[in-house]
Amino acid sequence: MSKIAVFGTGMVGDTIGSKLIELGHSVMMGSRTKDNEKAKAFANKYLGKATVGTYAEAAAFGEIIFNCTAGGGSIEALKMAGEKNINEKIIVDIANPLDFSKGMPPSLSVSNTHSLGEEIQKTFPQTKVVKTLNTIWCGLMVNPQMINGGDHSIFISGNEASAKDKVKGILKSFGWSEKNILDLGDITTARGTEMYLPLWLRIWGATQNGAFNIKIVS
Amino acid sequence: MSKIAVFGTGMVGDTIGSKLIELGHSVMMGSRTKDNEKAKAFANKYLGKATVGTYAEAAAFGEIIFNCTAGGGSIEALKMAGEKNINEKIIVDIANPLDFSKGMPPSLSVSNTHSLGEEIQKTFPQTKVVKTLNTIWCGLMVNPQMINGGDHSIFISGNEASAKDKVKGILKSFGWSEKNILDLGDITTARGTEMYLPLWLRIWGATQNGAFNIKIVS
Repeated sequence: MSKIAVFGTGMVGDTIGSKLIELGHSVMMGSRTKDNEKAKAFANKYLGKATVGTYAEAAAFGEIIFNCTAGGGSIEALKMAGEKNINEKIIVDIANPLDFSKGMPPSLSVSNTHSLGEEIQKTFPQTKVVKTLNTIWCGLMVNPQMINGGDHSIFISGNEASAKDKVKGILKSFGWSEKNILDLGDITTARGTEMYLPLWLRIWGATQNGAFNIKIVS
Repeated sequence: MSKIAVFGTGMVGDTIGSKLIELGHSVMMGSRTKDNEKAKAFANKYLGKATVGTYAEAAAFGEIIFNCTAGGGSIEALKMAGEKNINEKIIVDIANPLDFSKGMPPSLSVSNTHSLGEEIQKTFPQTKVVKTLNTIWCGLMVNPQMINGGDHSIFISGNEASAKDKVKGILKSFGWSEKNILDLGDITTARGTEMYLPLWLRIWGATQNGAFNIKIVS
């Protein structure tokens, strides 16, 4: 079992953090301030297993960092964490660079020839960024069996094979089967999964159901 | 049976045109010049059923226009066709705005807050643009049964319900089942399907198999 930092106190952070604790890991939920109410509520749900801290404290605690912040705040959160606390560590980047300023559904603040995953990797070159899980609603991230008997696709992008293997292990512990985890390649492939979001949003809009995913068939 | 214009003499135009002829439609393949060698070869394959012309001649002939040009040349092709020949007609837009100038895999020349489908609709407001089939390899467009028993998803975007219904009818004649045709909404939803291309390209890169599609599961 690992010590894991979860950055972000929203629904995604709460869902990922809760699953990690259920699996026996120790979790510190990080946010801007020590007294974030949502982080404290999370820790109170899991007394003895979850704690609360600043981004810097959580990063120092974690062997792995889950980035569950809003995409627009991810770089700043990692800067607040401090390079000495994040260097050499795996950052599991679940965030999407959604831009709500140009109307609904949101567009992306970076896309096409760049991605948030790459931006994080470039800004913090000593970390090991692994982009995954950003293509689905958080409830499915930790419970793929909720739909189609768990048989649907998830993607993984990152520069380092060993870091991707470690994250694949976590995905499997979440219930993802090996055959449904597709390694797309290096971190530039995060452009693909982030740019899928606009289609995701419109499928959601058309079906009014967020508990869906895509399955690659061939 | 209909008279249909197919713009574009590449693999997509040839595949779509051949299927339309197999289904009993009359096809005129349009290109910049009357003497395009690939268009002539196509017409020679289907003597009596297929003809060749300029974009303007093909558009004047067709009750429906399939845009199978490269995305970067679609607007110009439609301008060459002339508004009097395309107005009030359905343009089935299969093209993607792929930009090969910034390295491989290609990026998109328009995306995020705009799309090629919208650009065509805006440039030619009297036409009825229906975006569809742009998310898969052309072999699958006209033969969905090739994989997974035909059970996978195709999207449709456009402002006018009657035009989308007509195109849905064509999709069904290609072998798509009603349950797998998802109407995403108006033409702005083409942003979603066009922005899926970068993920498509990376799935193709990772699996080395272009004969795949996604199936929405929920």
